[in-house]
Amino acid sequence: MSTTDRELRVGMVGYAFMGAAHSQAWRTVNRVYDLPARARMALICGRDTAKVADAADRLGWDAYTTDWRDLINRDDIDVVDICTPGDSHAEIALAALAAGKHVLCEKPLANTVEEARAMTAAADVARAAGVRSMCGFNYRRVPAVTMMRQLVADGRLGVIRHVRATYLQDWIVDPQFPLVWRLQKDRAGSGALGDIGAHIIDLTQFVTGQRISGVSAVTETFVKERPLPAESSGLAATADGGTAPTGQVTVDDAAVFVARLDGGALATYEASRFATGRKNALRVEINGSLGSVVFDLERLNELEFYDATRPTTEQGFSRILVTEGEHPYMSAWWPPGHIIGYEHSFTHEMRDFIEAVATDVDPTPSFSDALQVQLVLDAVARSAELGSSWAEVAPTLTPASV
Amino acid sequence: MSTTDRELRVGMVGYAFMGAAHSQAWRTVNRVYDLPARARMALICGRDTAKVADAADRLGWDAYTTDWRDLINRDDIDVVDICTPGDSHAEIALAALAAGKHVLCEKPLANTVEEARAMTAAADVARAAGVRSMCGFNYRRVPAVTMMRQLVADGRLGVIRHVRATYLQDWIVDPQFPLVWRLQKDRAGSGALGDIGAHIIDLTQFVTGQRISGVSAVTETFVKERPLPAESSGLAATADGGTAPTGQVTVDDAAVFVARLDGGALATYEASRFATGRKNALRVEINGSLGSVVFDLERLNELEFYDATRPTTEQGFSRILVTEGEHPYMSAWWPPGHIIGYEHSFTHEMRDFIEAVATDVDPTPSFSDALQVQLVLDAVARSAELGSSWAEVAPTLTPASV
Amino acid sequence: MSTTDRELRVGMVGYAFMGAAHSQAWRTVNRVYDLPARARMALICGRDTAKVADAADRLGWDAYTTDWRDLINRDDIDVVDICTPGDSHAEIALAALAAGKHVLCEKPLANTVEEARAMTAAADVARAAGVRSMCGFNYRRVPAVTMMRQLVADGRLGVIRHVRATYLQDWIVDPQFPLVWRLQKDRAGSGALGDIGAHIIDLTQFVTGQRISGVSAVTETFVKERPLPAESSGLAATADGGTAPTGQVTVDDAAVFVARLDGGALATYEASRFATGRKNALRVEINGSLGSVVFDLERLNELEFYDATRPTTEQGFSRILVTEGEHPYMSAWWPPGHIIGYEHSFTHEMRDFIEAVATDVDPTPSFSDALQVQLVLDAVARSAELGSSWAEVAPTLTPASV
Amino acid sequence: MSTTDRELRVGMVGYAFMGAAHSQAWRTVNRVYDLPARARMALICGRDTAKVADAADRLGWDAYTTDWRDLINRDDIDVVDICTPGDSHAEIALAALAAGKHVLCEKPLANTVEEARAMTAAADVARAAGVRSMCGFNYRRVPAVTMMRQLVADGRLGVIRHVRATYLQDWIVDPQFPLVWRLQKDRAGSGALGDIGAHIIDLTQFVTGQRISGVSAVTETFVKERPLPAESSGLAATADGGTAPTGQVTVDDAAVFVARLDGGALATYEASRFATGRKNALRVEINGSLGSVVFDLERLNELEFYDATRPTTEQGFSRILVTEGEHPYMSAWWPPGHIIGYEHSFTHEMRDFIEAVATDVDPTPSFSDALQVQLVLDAVARSAELGSSWAEVAPTLTPASV
Repeated sequence: MSTTDRELRVGMVGYAFMGAAHSQAWRTVNRVYDLPARARMALICGRDTAKVADAADRLGWDAYTTDWRDLINRDDIDVVDICTPGDSHAEIALAALAAGKHVLCEKPLANTVEEARAMTAAADVARAAGVRSMCGFNYRRVPAVTMMRQLVADGRLGVIRHVRATYLQDWIVDPQFPLVWRLQKDRAGSGALGDIGAHIIDLTQFVTGQRISGVSAVTETFVKERPLPAESSGLAATADGGTAPTGQVTVDDAAVFVARLDGGALATYEASRFATGRKNALRVEINGSLGSVVFDLERLNELEFYDATRPTTEQGFSRILVTEGEHPYMSAWWPPGHIIGYEHSFTHEMRDFIEAVATDVDPTPSFSDALQVQLVLDAVARSAELGSSWAEVAPTLTPASV
Repeated sequence: MSTTDRELRVGMVGYAFMGAAHSQAWRTVNRVYDLPARARMALICGRDTAKVADAADRLGWDAYTTDWRDLINRDDIDVVDICTPGDSHAEIALAALAAGKHVLCEKPLANTVEEARAMTAAADVARAAGVRSMCGFNYRRVPAVTMMRQLVADGRLGVIRHVRATYLQDWIVDPQFPLVWRLQKDRAGSGALGDIGAHIIDLTQFVTGQRISGVSAVTETFVKERPLPAESSGLAATADGGTAPTGQVTVDDAAVFVARLDGGALATYEASRFATGRKNALRVEINGSLGSVVFDLERLNELEFYDATRPTTEQGFSRILVTEGEHPYMSAWWPPGHIIGYEHSFTHEMRDFIEAVATDVDPTPSFSDALQVQLVLDAVARSAELGSSWAEVAPTLTPASV
Repeated sequence: MSTTDRELRVGMVGYAFMGAAHSQAWRTVNRVYDLPARARMALICGRDTAKVADAADRLGWDAYTTDWRDLINRDDIDVVDICTPGDSHAEIALAALAAGKHVLCEKPLANTVEEARAMTAAADVARAAGVRSMCGFNYRRVPAVTMMRQLVADGRLGVIRHVRATYLQDWIVDPQFPLVWRLQKDRAGSGALGDIGAHIIDLTQFVTGQRISGVSAVTETFVKERPLPAESSGLAATADGGTAPTGQVTVDDAAVFVARLDGGALATYEASRFATGRKNALRVEINGSLGSVVFDLERLNELEFYDATRPTTEQGFSRILVTEGEHPYMSAWWPPGHIIGYEHSFTHEMRDFIEAVATDVDPTPSFSDALQVQLVLDAVARSAELGSSWAEVAPTLTPASV
Repeated sequence: MSTTDRELRVGMVGYAFMGAAHSQAWRTVNRVYDLPARARMALICGRDTAKVADAADRLGWDAYTTDWRDLINRDDIDVVDICTPGDSHAEIALAALAAGKHVLCEKPLANTVEEARAMTAAADVARAAGVRSMCGFNYRRVPAVTMMRQLVADGRLGVIRHVRATYLQDWIVDPQFPLVWRLQKDRAGSGALGDIGAHIIDLTQFVTGQRISGVSAVTETFVKERPLPAESSGLAATADGGTAPTGQVTVDDAAVFVARLDGGALATYEASRFATGRKNALRVEINGSLGSVVFDLERLNELEFYDATRPTTEQGFSRILVTEGEHPYMSAWWPPGHIIGYEHSFTHEMRDFIEAVATDVDPTPSFSDALQVQLVLDAVARSAELGSSWAEVAPTLTPASV
């Protein structure tokens, strides 16, 4: 660790799945990277006193509170890390920015375009005062994804022709799986679309450097009524057998759409929680005039790269093990071939966030970038509602940060 | 070989890529299967005398002719096998059926819905007279594909939720690749859509037992002008360098669409000749409530099957090597693990065609089945023309044969 | 087909698994390759009149005989193709060579070193009279294997450090599988060692251009007694349930050995018929100072190539689909990505044999090359018998032809 | 975290590669698992004051010392964690056990059988006094490996017939890579054999529940002289170009051997640092009469399982994503499909160590188990020295703990 004495005191709101992942990252980031500031896990916030106390102890936070406004009002907090469901992002973020706190907000940025626009505007105001904000699309920091971005930026793929992206899970195939908050529109905004579809929208735009200009979409809710949950945690939950009262599923189970990117590429996207056998199958393939890349989150240490400038007889998809010290983020970890996991993407995210804040530059993706993803989600939802008619993606009114 | 003396005298029109593949199949089918009739490679037809004479000698046909009407008029021909580009299918097939010949017609059945309807009507009339007809969607007879169909039919996948199908090639990525007939609308009808998109439409409908009811599509011609060809063969061709005169590409380079199947599944389809690094990548994944299957034509001896009724800790995609004697069509070939190739799908097709004709039943897929594929292609083209608006697939007016 | 009138009249002895595979190749070879001579499937020989008559009809041979001496004595036979079990190779081959027939003999060349030496000596004598001989290690002609050889020969792998080769099957795991001829030492010579171990010995020596100089081996017969067979065909067979009389298994079920190659590489070899789940898993990996290659016969259209001279961040095993027209043997087949199967290796073998005979050069592998494989098998058997002590491979006394 | 107040105060000796990995595990284990005791990272020891001070700060240890005897003598240390090169294991472990400290010692247990025997004897004496000891073969705690062990123990593989294990790396292929301590016999004991070969010996014995009874081996040092190192860290190092003084490599670069297991299986083993393109390729396949398993450390979240009791047409290697809550160790981590990395195996190791110590039972693998691995290494070395003659593995004189 560098001898820096600068400390960034982090207050985190939320302690479930994302809270645990972020905690692991905050705990680790300064242990593996030399950074100009050191994160201090100062305060964790949750509504249930017993649970948040336990979370503070287990996850390693100095203190806890049950009121996020208390967290924001404290002078000894520099960074607010928002890990709550999407319906509270806007309120917390706006207050935090107003209080001069740097904000790291989990994706999707908000549940509605209106909220996202307000947050972006607030971030722009705050930026002028040196307050930084970032949306947590962690998969950008998977080394293989970062490397894809570099290959495209270096022109190694030539003109991008095709993007095909799927994010497939299967955790609600069973109709008896209960109606957790992620299946409720008022809490989650949307279903597979916003939860996992947002990831592939951001990731493919990040990698290609192009933005989706329009879409034609179909969404579906295969199981429309589910038992109310007895208890839930992360993506796991239980219901009280067949006797449980039921409720309406108010979000999509799956969303599929075709799209055009503003650089001329055609694209297909699919987000589903009904893809039996697929657990966390974020897969992206990009074809360009000079080469192609393939990425699979379940094998996140690997990148397939096809270089069409090689001799014909030797062309093939190369399985690159993205574990060399020369690969993005990897110099901090283990020797080549010793793989990293899902959680490392968050450590890389915190690394870049800390560095940006400490060196007084804007981290990416910005709130504006995340707003643009929200605008794509909105176009998808509109198209689906209007019988798959073509829907243009509205402009963010601010330029992309990438 | 059985001791049958019954001979089916085949006359084949066309001798290029499909002609060579069919010849290999006709030559082989009675060598490996015991069938109630024996195919005789009686006559091959092509317009260029020297070339068709050479083809007859090389491919093993007894005689040749340069006039397909001559072939159809001969009394000693029982079967007409149509391997020409799509613009001549209708005329030849209608004449052949009228002459009482059994007809095997390569896919796509025709270049237009109108032609396909006329052919289907003629096939229905001919059927009453015991004349058989079949469209050559050979991939149905890849053993792994047939097995997928059986798994679905046996209920092993439960309710089908998702279909995702791609057929990706890259043989025209180079803008200097010449303007072969497959890139001309008047000859080929359409581009990637009809050539390879037709395969995945048929295959997924065959496997799921469901039909596409509507689509929303985007198509694109990335390279709109190409040099005129100096010479071409199969999918290979050469142009006369930079000095060659050029012409307009009048078909799609790529087509992507989302669809609904009439059994409730959502689907994505993509056909492209611009997917760098993908040579013949017909890939299909189908997710059902009880299981999933994955198929890749470049590894056509394998089928991945996920059985969600297995114990949770043991669930996984099983790579089944579809080379056991108990697998469809495989008892005729080699011991387990000794793989077969692309051409074997045609041998299986001829096997089923011969058996159907010899036992006086209708082979599948029927012309009506192929018409239905044409209707899907038509809906895709309509949607694409109308800015990706939703397009319903028109009815065939006859039931599916599968 | 070229306009050549030269015909090579082939007489084949044997009509089981290898007989069927060779027939398919003889039937096909002149249909896909332009060659200076045309193979005529003139005569097939087998001991059982009814069976050989049926085989002639099914497999497409002009005539049949039940006496191989008759086949050899006929003036109108140019080539003798030996597809019988190993115990009759020497007698037939010696007679055929003495009669001035070109000989293609299936592997392993013989059941003993003595026989193989005699055959090699006879081949040397015959060669002086323009009579050609070849041993049928067909896997050398799998395009990916030929390409591996070229990569090594071109120095692309640098100094070879490691060879690891396995040939795994599982067809006799069931102790009730009957005692077919391949499990009897007097017929088969040895078990997994000679049947499939011979293939990986030949293949790795061919690819590396190095020869095994010594070995240390362990062999095992896991199931020592089996029911006598009621009927068998190829690798399939049935026994009469639990009441069948039994006999001793007199060959190895599995053989494993470490080896040194004369160019300095270390190697491991394993041949087994007890590798549950492995059907025809011939897998070879070769590591050199500049690169590595991996081959798997169950995916025989693919070659993995690691080029360590590429930039560090882009190094990876490239999955090359060996289906381009520029790849060995592939210009005759289908467009890129359209895969070939097991049987094609025999067609390639016949292609090279016909070309060599017609152009009056020696085909490879020669009998001497095959003798050398026999000498390795002998060293393995000796080492295993002597408690895994190191056994040097005896010299062939003639140079390698490769 | 449970409300336990019990603390285990850990003192770790060494801070390089293994020290960093252990630190990450100690820091994380109580954050994700509920355990009867809480590890306190009390003291770290290294010889270089500046470096160990920096390591303490970076890795999160309360204090540091430069004298391991000081660490052992302190009353406030409960556990001694030995992460030094093998030549100091025995001295430190013997002293720690004598001082009544629980000991966790990295593998290999020692550089010689004599040292390992002494350590085992000391561990047996200490055990009587309630002092626990364990050798850190961390790969046993990769969930897929633990699951393989369970499948074998449950009889799912039937009678084990074959083990094939490789551990391949390529970090010293370049002859200019310097002579780091791992290439010096007096520090490392042996080369690839003890460093990575030890892992596959332990892992395969653990999984099968069988022990290697004898071996026949070949070892090689491909590059016998290397430049002396300027600086090294983990597996990375640099030399001073072509002008550096050189030294003799005194360990093996690669070791290959065949073996028999005491339950009747045949096995092949290979450990190499010259397998170009293989970075950390620990791969194990085990074939039994009822099924097979395959594991690859570079894809450590996956297990391939072939169940030969399934219907013939559905048998295949199932790629199980070992990320379900029901899988070993996984309930503490992320939702299904969110993969873990190399370092997690150490967290699992610390979890089991803490639990064992806190509940007063012996952790595994014991020093005796590790001694037995040492005896296998010794047999391999003896066989290699004696021209690959068969070498029996000497008995440990104590029973296996597994």
